[in-house]
Amino acid sequence: MRLLIIGSIALDTVENFYGKVEDVLGGSAVYASVAASNFCDKVSIVGVVGKDFPDEYLELLQKRGIDTKGLEIANGKTFRWKGRYENLNEAITLQTSLNVFANFSPKIPEKYKSYEYILLGNIDPDLQINVISQLKKPKIIAADTMNFWIQSKNESLKKLLKMIDILFINEDEIKMLTHETSTFDAAEKTFKMGPKIIIIKRGEYGSLAIVKDFLFFAPIYPVKKVIDTTGAGDSFAGGFMGYLTGENKLNEQTLKKATIYGTITASFNIEGFSLDKLQNINFEMINSRKNEIQRFVEF
Amino acid sequence: MRLLIIGSIALDTVENFYGKVEDVLGGSAVYASVAASNFCDKVSIVGVVGKDFPDEYLELLQKRGIDTKGLEIANGKTFRWKGRYENLNEAITLQTSLNVFANFSPKIPEKYKSYEYILLGNIDPDLQINVISQLKKPKIIAADTMNFWIQSKNESLKKLLKMIDILFINEDEIKMLTHETSTFDAAEKTFKMGPKIIIIKRGEYGSLAIVKDFLFFAPIYPVKKVIDTTGAGDSFAGGFMGYLTGENKLNEQTLKKATIYGTITASFNIEGFSLDKLQNINFEMINSRKNEIQRFVEF
Repeated sequence: MRLLIIGSIALDTVENFYGKVEDVLGGSAVYASVAASNFCDKVSIVGVVGKDFPDEYLELLQKRGIDTKGLEIANGKTFRWKGRYENLNEAITLQTSLNVFANFSPKIPEKYKSYEYILLGNIDPDLQINVISQLKKPKIIAADTMNFWIQSKNESLKKLLKMIDILFINEDEIKMLTHETSTFDAAEKTFKMGPKIIIIKRGEYGSLAIVKDFLFFAPIYPVKKVIDTTGAGDSFAGGFMGYLTGENKLNEQTLKKATIYGTITASFNIEGFSLDKLQNINFEMINSRKNEIQRFVEF
Repeated sequence: MRLLIIGSIALDTVENFYGKVEDVLGGSAVYASVAASNFCDKVSIVGVVGKDFPDEYLELLQKRGIDTKGLEIANGKTFRWKGRYENLNEAITLQTSLNVFANFSPKIPEKYKSYEYILLGNIDPDLQINVISQLKKPKIIAADTMNFWIQSKNESLKKLLKMIDILFINEDEIKMLTHETSTFDAAEKTFKMGPKIIIIKRGEYGSLAIVKDFLFFAPIYPVKKVIDTTGAGDSFAGGFMGYLTGENKLNEQTLKKATIYGTITASFNIEGFSLDKLQNINFEMINSRKNEIQRFVEF
């Protein structure tokens, strides 16, 4: 099956304990598509970049088999984000320059409209809704969101939730969304808002897949050295959706495995800046971590 | 095999959202022994109570098959603790009356000195060391501790760590003990202090068993309604050690299962005040939760 990913494509400047990288490839659609490309060979992205977007970054995506024909190249500069990490998990945004992203209105190319699997990266819920309105009955729509949209676009987000099947969200964000203090109560309330499958990201405590009739707890894969957590959530969602698209089956077994594969693509991603590590992984490397995780949890 | 448990025996007064109970049975040795009694039929406790200790509480322990002959009945009042929970996990101590516990110096009865498995409940590390010095080469010594001893009896605690095989400790406490911010770095450093097996309790995120050559992540068992978390750590340690004693084998498989059984006895304990729920469980109830957890984590 085919997977369409909509999201940001960015040039990131990141500073942390290990150093600083400038104008490197980033953005939710980028991390997600590279992660997904490990599990499914028909991944297309829709997004916008400026005239200054380096060819080598486009080639990096194409080398991973990602179809970039839906990438709009607009007059102006590419979206830029500057952030500094004081600890591993929390980024302080130093600067956000929307540039060409400011007027981005995703136009889904005709041939993508019938794609079966859709991942709406973490962007304005109004844009996410706009994308859905252009599609022809996809099988599965998944969306990622964040605290910023919960606060600033609450009504739009609630409208979006009615239209999607899978929600990716951080643990503190689902509590914020529902005004609940317990994760399980928050999930109950979120089910009533629309999604049938909720994937809660819990940072160093792994993730939790909640479906009406089952729960699945996934631990993290403990990497030796975490370099940069930028894109961890996006590479998680990408690995997850890439696997589901490749399998084209939605059941307890595939949802559990999707959660584990999301965990694994995210674990590689955080071992380097930008796509340094994520772009170089292969199925053998992924499979080896899958076997390790199996040993971490089975009894 | 036989399991000896040393710890506190208390009359607790607990206030929380669900109500208030006064002078109810509690204490680390009590919770741990009742939890352990599900897995092994030779559980003996050593501790001290006052003349005011109700017969019915003694009978409750004996009904569970726990040998209470090592219980010293001293002149004076039983140890009392009063606490209030403002949320589920953090107790505010309102009053601690040591009473007969103030002069407690555990005297291990001759027949207990050759016990194979030992659980030193969370008490003063000097008392824990004193107990070990009376024993005749047990197979496995496990100890629980807490932030209070890390701060006030650091030297004694470090001496204790050299003498034990298994350490039960909270995640924030192992970081405090080692001055590390990463759980895995903290475990590495703790291995150098003595224990070969570290069981890290992570509250709502479950627990983590760390051994030199493997890791095991256990989730919580999500109970419908958490009533009172008093004794959760003790019933975890008791279930864990009870299972190991019953099996009398220490390998990857038994350590993983011990962690799961500890999780399960703790999950029952928090469903009621005092021993209300924990005293009434049986192997079938435990096994049913074991099967559910298996489904929560296997993929």
